[in-house]
Amino acid sequence: MTFEVVGKNVNRLDGVEKVTGRAKYTDDFFERDMLIGKVLRSPYAHAIVKNIDTTKALALEGVEAVITYKDLPKIKFATAGHPWSLDPSHRDIDDRLILTDKARFVGDAIAAVVASDELIAEKALKLIEVEYEVLPHILKAEDAIKEYAPIIHEERPNNILSTFGSETGKIEDDMKNAHKIFKGVYETSIVQHCHMENHTAYSYVDSNGRIVIISSTQIPHIVRRIVGQALGMSWGNIRVIKPCVGGGFGNKQDVVIEPLVAAMSLAAHGKPVRYALSREECFIDTRTRHGMKIKFNTAVSKDGKLLGLDIENLVNNGAYASHGHSVAMSAGGKFRPLYNFNSIKYSPTTVYTNLPVAGAMRGYGAPQMCFALESHLDDIARELNIDPIEFRKANLIKEGYVDPLSKNVVRSFVLPECIDKGKELIKWDEKKRKYKNQKGDKRRGVGMACFSYFSGTHPVALETAGARIVMNQDGSIQLQIGATEIGQGSDTVFGQMAAECIGLPIDMVHVIETHDTDITPFDTGSYASRQTFVAGAVVKKAAMEVRDKVLTFASNNCGLNKDELDIVNCEIIEKRLGRRICSLEDIAMESYYDRIKCCPITSDTSANVRMNAIAYGVTYAEVEVDIKTGEIEVLEIYNVHDSGIIMNHKLAEGQVDGGVSMGLGYALSEQMLFDEKTGRLLNDNLLDYKLQTIMDTPTINSAFIEKYEPAGSFGQKSLGENTTVSPAPAIRNAVLDAIGIGFNKIPMNPQSVFEKIKESGLVYEGEKENV
Amino acid sequence: MTFEVVGKNVNRLDGVEKVTGRAKYTDDFFERDMLIGKVLRSPYAHAIVKNIDTTKALALEGVEAVITYKDLPKIKFATAGHPWSLDPSHRDIDDRLILTDKARFVGDAIAAVVASDELIAEKALKLIEVEYEVLPHILKAEDAIKEYAPIIHEERPNNILSTFGSETGKIEDDMKNAHKIFKGVYETSIVQHCHMENHTAYSYVDSNGRIVIISSTQIPHIVRRIVGQALGMSWGNIRVIKPCVGGGFGNKQDVVIEPLVAAMSLAAHGKPVRYALSREECFIDTRTRHGMKIKFNTAVSKDGKLLGLDIENLVNNGAYASHGHSVAMSAGGKFRPLYNFNSIKYSPTTVYTNLPVAGAMRGYGAPQMCFALESHLDDIARELNIDPIEFRKANLIKEGYVDPLSKNVVRSFVLPECIDKGKELIKWDEKKRKYKNQKGDKRRGVGMACFSYFSGTHPVALETAGARIVMNQDGSIQLQIGATEIGQGSDTVFGQMAAECIGLPIDMVHVIETHDTDITPFDTGSYASRQTFVAGAVVKKAAMEVRDKVLTFASNNCGLNKDELDIVNCEIIEKRLGRRICSLEDIAMESYYDRIKCCPITSDTSANVRMNAIAYGVTYAEVEVDIKTGEIEVLEIYNVHDSGIIMNHKLAEGQVDGGVSMGLGYALSEQMLFDEKTGRLLNDNLLDYKLQTIMDTPTINSAFIEKYEPAGSFGQKSLGENTTVSPAPAIRNAVLDAIGIGFNKIPMNPQSVFEKIKESGLVYEGEKENV
Repeated sequence: MTFEVVGKNVNRLDGVEKVTGRAKYTDDFFERDMLIGKVLRSPYAHAIVKNIDTTKALALEGVEAVITYKDLPKIKFATAGHPWSLDPSHRDIDDRLILTDKARFVGDAIAAVVASDELIAEKALKLIEVEYEVLPHILKAEDAIKEYAPIIHEERPNNILSTFGSETGKIEDDMKNAHKIFKGVYETSIVQHCHMENHTAYSYVDSNGRIVIISSTQIPHIVRRIVGQALGMSWGNIRVIKPCVGGGFGNKQDVVIEPLVAAMSLAAHGKPVRYALSREECFIDTRTRHGMKIKFNTAVSKDGKLLGLDIENLVNNGAYASHGHSVAMSAGGKFRPLYNFNSIKYSPTTVYTNLPVAGAMRGYGAPQMCFALESHLDDIARELNIDPIEFRKANLIKEGYVDPLSKNVVRSFVLPECIDKGKELIKWDEKKRKYKNQKGDKRRGVGMACFSYFSGTHPVALETAGARIVMNQDGSIQLQIGATEIGQGSDTVFGQMAAECIGLPIDMVHVIETHDTDITPFDTGSYASRQTFVAGAVVKKAAMEVRDKVLTFASNNCGLNKDELDIVNCEIIEKRLGRRICSLEDIAMESYYDRIKCCPITSDTSANVRMNAIAYGVTYAEVEVDIKTGEIEVLEIYNVHDSGIIMNHKLAEGQVDGGVSMGLGYALSEQMLFDEKTGRLLNDNLLDYKLQTIMDTPTINSAFIEKYEPAGSFGQKSLGENTTVSPAPAIRNAVLDAIGIGFNKIPMNPQSVFEKIKESGLVYEGEKENV
Repeated sequence: MTFEVVGKNVNRLDGVEKVTGRAKYTDDFFERDMLIGKVLRSPYAHAIVKNIDTTKALALEGVEAVITYKDLPKIKFATAGHPWSLDPSHRDIDDRLILTDKARFVGDAIAAVVASDELIAEKALKLIEVEYEVLPHILKAEDAIKEYAPIIHEERPNNILSTFGSETGKIEDDMKNAHKIFKGVYETSIVQHCHMENHTAYSYVDSNGRIVIISSTQIPHIVRRIVGQALGMSWGNIRVIKPCVGGGFGNKQDVVIEPLVAAMSLAAHGKPVRYALSREECFIDTRTRHGMKIKFNTAVSKDGKLLGLDIENLVNNGAYASHGHSVAMSAGGKFRPLYNFNSIKYSPTTVYTNLPVAGAMRGYGAPQMCFALESHLDDIARELNIDPIEFRKANLIKEGYVDPLSKNVVRSFVLPECIDKGKELIKWDEKKRKYKNQKGDKRRGVGMACFSYFSGTHPVALETAGARIVMNQDGSIQLQIGATEIGQGSDTVFGQMAAECIGLPIDMVHVIETHDTDITPFDTGSYASRQTFVAGAVVKKAAMEVRDKVLTFASNNCGLNKDELDIVNCEIIEKRLGRRICSLEDIAMESYYDRIKCCPITSDTSANVRMNAIAYGVTYAEVEVDIKTGEIEVLEIYNVHDSGIIMNHKLAEGQVDGGVSMGLGYALSEQMLFDEKTGRLLNDNLLDYKLQTIMDTPTINSAFIEKYEPAGSFGQKSLGENTTVSPAPAIRNAVLDAIGIGFNKIPMNPQSVFEKIKESGLVYEGEKENV
C-alpha cells in the first residue's frame, strides 16, 4: 500500500501559529467584565471543616461571591475522563464534592471567592475564617491498610479503593513446576505531568441559562457530562469549548477545575469568571502519577522459559479516586501481550492516602509496571547468566497471539526486529565488550527494556469517534473531528488522512481547531493513545464518504462506473487510462450550484471501533555513572517502535522526544516530596521539582520498524504514550550493567545512587584503584 | 394539521440576550492590536483619478498601510448577493473595483488607510493627495439616456444597465379591444434602509494564509465567494463569520465592505483590521432603494375587467450595477399573479447615474410597482365610478392560477378573505359614509391596496438551504442552519420547526447563533423572504431524519414497527395505545454509549427547493389630511396577510410592525436629497433624513388569514418583505379619498402635499368655508 500524503513529513498545520504566538489558548480569550475565581485550600492533610465564616470576605468591596460546600449541590461525582458506561458497575467512583466539608490532602478546595480582580480575590481568601478539626493523616500506602488506620472516606469501611485484579492460566501449577522462583520488589515515585499550560478555564451562563465553559482540556465532551453530573444539570445545558491546549499528558483527562469554575459563575449570577491554576496549585490539586510498589514471584523453567508471574501491586492513589482503580488495572494489563507466560496473576491494592490525587498520566500505569518487570527480567537474566536480550527474545509472544483477557489479537508484530535494530544502533555488542572490565570513577554500561501497549481502550471501554467534512467550492475541505488536539499533532495527522482519501494536497484541508461540544462531532477525547488509531477510522470513513459523493457526481456526468474513477491531485481521472475527466473543483461547483443536482458535499459520521492493535517497542540506553557523586549521565538513548505504519515521521519523532524526556526525568530526577509531619508538598514548583531540562537531555534517537497493521485504517498502531514506557528500566539496566548495582526504586538521583554505591562498597573499592 | 410548537407564540430564542445587551455583534468582538481602516472618498460625482500621492500619509507615525487601486488586483467584480450561477448569462454585472480609479458618485472609495487608531487614520486620509479630472455628472435617470450624455462606465456604449423585460399574452390585442385605455405615471424616491447597525467588519489573515472576515452580513456564504472573486483567491481560502446582525433589509445582501476590509488586512501583513462605516458613510456608500418612474397604459373592458397592462419603468440605478437589473425585473414580476390580466408587457430601462448605488431593499422592486399599480387602479376605479375594493376583487386571479412566466402555481389563495377582513377591521363602509361630505381643514379618508409576493426566488435563482442537527445525551438538540438570522427571528422559527418534528419542547432546541462558512451548512442567505419557506424545508428534512434515527433505535429495542411509534414531549410512545415505551433520553444515551449500537444521532443535509409559494395581502389605511399644512396623519392602519400557516404570531406581528413602519416612511417622509450641482447627498444622517419615529407611528395592526400552503413544509408562505409593499399606495389612496387629490409621487411630505393642495384650489376653498 502506498500513500501520497499519509506517511509524509507534513508540517504541523498549527505550526506557524504556535511558533508566532498567534495560536489562541484559553487565557488568550476574555469576556467583558471577566471576574476572577480563587480557591481557599486546606493547610491540613486530613481535617473536618467544623465551621466556615465567609461574612468578612463577602463584605470586601469587589467580592462578588464566596462559596463553600454549603452553597453547592450535595452530589458526589467522579472526575475520571472515561466514556460514560450504561452499566453502573463499570462507572468511576463518585467520591468528591466540588468544595469539600472534609479536607483529605493539603490543598483540598474548601471555599472559593469570585472577585473583580486577583488581588481582591486573594485578600478575600484571607478573610474567610475556617475552623478545622484536624485528624491524623496517612501518606504511605502501607499505612493506609494498617488496622485502625484513620478512614479517609468515612462512607467506606477502610481505605482500600480497589483490589480488582486478574488471573490467566494456573499460577499454582507454574510455581510448582518452576526450576526457580525469582522474587523482586520495585518501587516508583509520585511524579507530576508538568505540561506547559496549567489548568485554566473560564465560564459564564448564557442568556438561555446554559453554562458555557472554555477550558484547557483533553476531553471536552466528557467535561460536559461531568459538569452536568456535578451540578445536577441536564447535560445538554452545558457547552464546553476547547481552544488550543498547551499539553495535558493525562492530567487534563480528568475534570479537575470545570465544575468549580461553573459553580463560580453560577454564584456570580452567570457573569464570566476565570479560574486559572498557578503552577503551585497545579502541582497539588490536579493529578499525579501513582506511586506503586510492585512485588514479583516469577516462575522460570530450567531453560530460561518464563512460566508464571505472580504480581502484587500496592498503589498509592492519594485522596480521591479519579482514575485510581483503572490505572492499577492498566498496569497489570498493558504488558500482558509481551512475554509468553503460561500464567499471570495480578493482585493490585489501590488505597486512599492523604496525598494529592493520582490519576491518568502518559502510560497510565505502564511505566511503573515496565520499570518493575523489565528491571526484574534483567535481574533474572543476570542471575541465570543469560544475555538479557536473548532472554527476552526467547520469551516473546508471536504474531497471532490472542491476549487471554482482552481477546485483543496481535496482528502485526515486529518487536524482534525492533530489538535487533536498537541493538545495532547502540552498538550493543561492541560496547558490551568494551565496558567489560571497567575501573575508575566513571563507568559505562548499556541496558534495554521492552514494552507492549494498546491502541485505545477496547474492550475495556467504549471506543467511538466522530468526524465531519464539508467540501468547499474549490474542492478544499474543512475537517471537524471530535478527537482532541492537545499539542501532539493529531490535527495534522487527521488532515493527512483526509487528504489521502480525497486526493487533495494537505493545504486544501482545513482542520477546525477549536472544539465546541455544541457542534463538534462526539469523541471521548485524547487519551489512551487512541487518537490516530480510533479517530483515524472515522476520518477515513468520512473522507471515503466524501470521495464517494464526488465520484458519484462524476460518474453521473461521464457515464463511467465509479470504480473506474479516481481522484488524483484534485483531478477526476479514469483510472485505467489515466485520462483526466474534469477537475474536482468542477464537481464541487456543481454540487453547490447546479439548479437540479445541487447538494453540497458533506459527511457527518461516527465510528464505533471495536478493535485494538497492540504496539511494541524497546529502549536502549548507554549511561555513565560517576561513582563518586552518584550522578548518572545518559550518553545515548534509542527508542525503536513497532507502531505499524507511521503517519508522519516528524511528528512521531516529536512524540519520542517528549516521551523519552519524560522517561529520563522519571528514571533520574523527578519525584514529589512530602513533609511527613504535615503532608505538605515540599517541591511544588519547577525550581525545586527536578524536571529534565534541555541541558540534562542527550540526543534522543528514534527508529520505527513499519509493518502494516490490519486493524488500523492506514495500517497504524498507537505511539503517543508508548514512548515514555521503557526508558526508565533501560537506564536502570544500563546502570546495573555499568556498576553491577540494580536500583529497584526510581528516581535514581545522585543522592540515592550515591547512598547505594557507598553501601555496596564500590566507592571504597574505587578509591583503592585510584590510589 | 395541528402543531404543538409551530404556530405558537414562542419567545425569541435570542430575546433575553438582545434586550440585556449580552448578544454579540461584530463590533463586540476584537482582536489584540486591532488596526483601524478608513476610506478616502471622492468629493466629485464623476471624476477620473489622474494621480494619487500617498507618500505623506504613509510617513505618518501609526499608519500601517495606504492602498489605492494600484495596489489591488485589477479584477472587476459584482457585489449583488445572489447565488452563483453556472450559466455565465445569468450572472451579475462585474463593474467595480475594490478601490476605483474613476469616481462615479460622491463618496466613491478612492483610497484606504490602515492605522493604529481612528484619529491617525483620519489624519492620514487628509494627507493623501489626489488629482482629479472632474467630468460632467448625471443624477436623473432621464438625463442618463440622453444623447451625448457622459458615459459613466467607459467600457459600455451608453448608460443603460439593462432593458431586460417580459411580455405575456398579446398586449396589442388587448389595447385594441379595450373599452378604455387608462394612462398614469407614478414616481418613487430614492430611500435608504436605515438598519440600526451600520455595515461593519473586521478581517485578518490566519497563520495558514486564509482570510478571515467577521461581518454584519445577510449572506456569509456569498461574502466568501465574492471576496474570493474580488481578490482572485480560491474561495476555500476565505472564511466568513457572522455574529448577531442588527438589521439589513437587503442592504447587507450585497458585498459592500468585505473585499476592502480583506484587502486592508492583506496590506497590513495580515494583521486584524476593523472597517466600520459611520452612519454618514452608510448613507452614501452602501445601497439605496431604486427610484422608479413607472408609466402605465391599461386596457379595461366596458364592465371593468382589466385586459392588458403595458408598463414602462425608468429605473435609477446609481453608479454601479449591484442588484440593478434584477430589482427592475422583480418589480415587473412580483405583482403578476395578483390580477387576471390577459396580457402584461413590461419594459424596464435601468440606467447608471452618478448617485449612490441602488440595490436590494425589502420588497425588491415591489413597493415601487405596488405604489404605482395600486394608485393607478384607484384612479381607474374612481374614473369608472366603481368601488375600488369591488373593482379589485372582480379582477383577482383564482386558486390554481399558474404564472405564465415563472410557472409558479397558486396553491393557496385567501386574498379575497383578507380583503374582506381588512374592510371589516377598518370599518370601511361606516367611514366611507361618514367622510362623504367633509368640510373643514382636516379631512379624513380610507384607502386600501393589495399585493402579491413570492416565497424565495424560484425559478429565477437557485434555492438551496442546509441544516445540521446534533442530538445531545438528554435528547436536546443543537440546530445549525445556513439561513441567516439578522434580527427577523428566523432562528426561533427554525427552532420551533425542529422541536415540532422531534417532539421536543422549544427550550431543548439550541440554535447555533454564529455562522461560520467553514462549518455552517451552505445557504445563500437571508433575502427574498425565502427563509421560513426555503430553509424551513431543510430544517424539516433534518429533523425528520433525526426523528427517524430515534425511532429506529426505539423500534430495534421494542420490536414494534417505526410507524407505530411517535415522540411526544420527550417520550417514545406506541401511537395507537398511547403507551410509553421509554424516554427520548434513554434512546439518546444508548446512541452515545451503547457498546455495540453506539452511533450519536445527527443529521447534516441540504434541500434544493424547486418550488415557490405565492403570498398575498392587503393594507387598509385611514388618514387625516390637514389641508392648511399639508400634513398627513395616518389614524389607523391594518395589514391583512395571506401567508399560509403562521409559524409564530408574535414574530409575524413584529414583521408587520417593522414593514408597515418602513412603508409609512416611504409614503410620507423618506427620501434621499441630492444637491443638483454637486451630486452630494444633503441628508446623510438620521436627523435630516426623515425616518418615521415612534411619535409619528400609529398603532400598526395585523391580521392573518391562515390557509395551509401545500408547497410549504409546514403550510407556510413568505411574510418578511411582504409587509412593506402595500402601505404606501393604501395611504395614497386614503388621501385621494380624503381630499380628492391623487399623489403620484412619494413621499407625500407636507411640502409636496401642500403645494398640490394649493395648486388644486382646495386651500382657498377651505379658507372660504372657515370664514
